[in-house]
Amino acid sequence: MKGENTRTRLLEAGLNMLSQNGLSGLTIGRVAEAAGLSKSGLFAHVRSKEQLETELLDAGAELARQRVIAPAMRAAPGLARLRKLIDGWLGWSARAGLSGGCPVAAALFELDDRPGPVRDHVVTLERRWRDLLSGLAAEAVARGELRRDLDVEQFVWELCGIYLSHHTASRFLHDPLVEERARRAVDALIERAGGPAAETRSPSS
Amino acid sequence: MKGENTRTRLLEAGLNMLSQNGLSGLTIGRVAEAAGLSKSGLFAHVRSKEQLETELLDAGAELARQRVIAPAMRAAPGLARLRKLIDGWLGWSARAGLSGGCPVAAALFELDDRPGPVRDHVVTLERRWRDLLSGLAAEAVARGELRRDLDVEQFVWELCGIYLSHHTASRFLHDPLVEERARRAVDALIERAGGPAAETRSPSS
Repeated sequence: MKGENTRTRLLEAGLNMLSQNGLSGLTIGRVAEAAGLSKSGLFAHVRSKEQLETELLDAGAELARQRVIAPAMRAAPGLARLRKLIDGWLGWSARAGLSGGCPVAAALFELDDRPGPVRDHVVTLERRWRDLLSGLAAEAVARGELRRDLDVEQFVWELCGIYLSHHTASRFLHDPLVEERARRAVDALIERAGGPAAETRSPSS
Repeated sequence: MKGENTRTRLLEAGLNMLSQNGLSGLTIGRVAEAAGLSKSGLFAHVRSKEQLETELLDAGAELARQRVIAPAMRAAPGLARLRKLIDGWLGWSARAGLSGGCPVAAALFELDDRPGPVRDHVVTLERRWRDLLSGLAAEAVARGELRRDLDVEQFVWELCGIYLSHHTASRFLHDPLVEERARRAVDALIERAGGPAAETRSPSS
């Protein structure tokens, strides 16, 4: 039991540090200190810096699963579920209690020129996320809520751009209109995909 | 003369390192080594790590001015110039000879939670870039090439998302369709803004 608690504390402290400072801001010493462990105590839980990074990225993905994916899965299948996922995704890290931004979004820029197992792991996480989005969009197509000839991969590609623009506008530029801008961009993308025009949506949706 | 050459070498080596490893991957020692200088030789040119970072970001902005903005300014004013700027901007860092990605795009994610003069400087560079985009879009509106009621800031906000999605798709995911995806996203954005539909563009444009 004590081991499990220590491990949870380690992952929580490390994930917050990752969220705030990125992978290059992580050091074994600082994560150990934040978790109230000695360095050797930390090495009882992870074998290497790389393993620590990978486990923290997984902890971030698990948090997103709980806070973003699970609530969306409770919405009706199809477009409603897709919209719920998008709404929960934009700005999710702050609502999930992280002190910084989305660890995977930052890693997409931080690791682009750094080959290795951590980069490979982020590729896997990012592809898994995009596959989830594609699957939900394809479900909306199959239900006739988006047009039959929609290029689902193009749709997801553009959606990821809206997410990244939201991330920079909110977290970096502190743009006060960010939520409105993102909502309009998502509405326009869905309308182009054959979904209902924004005007026909109820204000609460 | 010798001082100028050394300074140029220093900025070139540092900018490449910044482009590849991000701000946190820069160290005075590594930049000095790459430029063939001693640490004290480097400090003859910059007073501090912060000044080095700021000057390297400026060197990146100057490179973008030469390689992206200047060619666009030679195009006809209005929508043609805006399109030329967008085409030159997407993937510009590789074409400009940098060994990594766009230093400012990476900094938007790296510095979001790190207040200080370097972050403030990146905010200034990013706002200046967005103002340039807004100005060109507004010119296209004034010339009747984009619709009169276009929300230019929203247009630029979405355009920045396409840029970031292109950056991650090309540099991180190595997506073979990235140029086609970005072109389609830009065409759709311009069409929504009242510009010509993609079908009416000549294949060479």
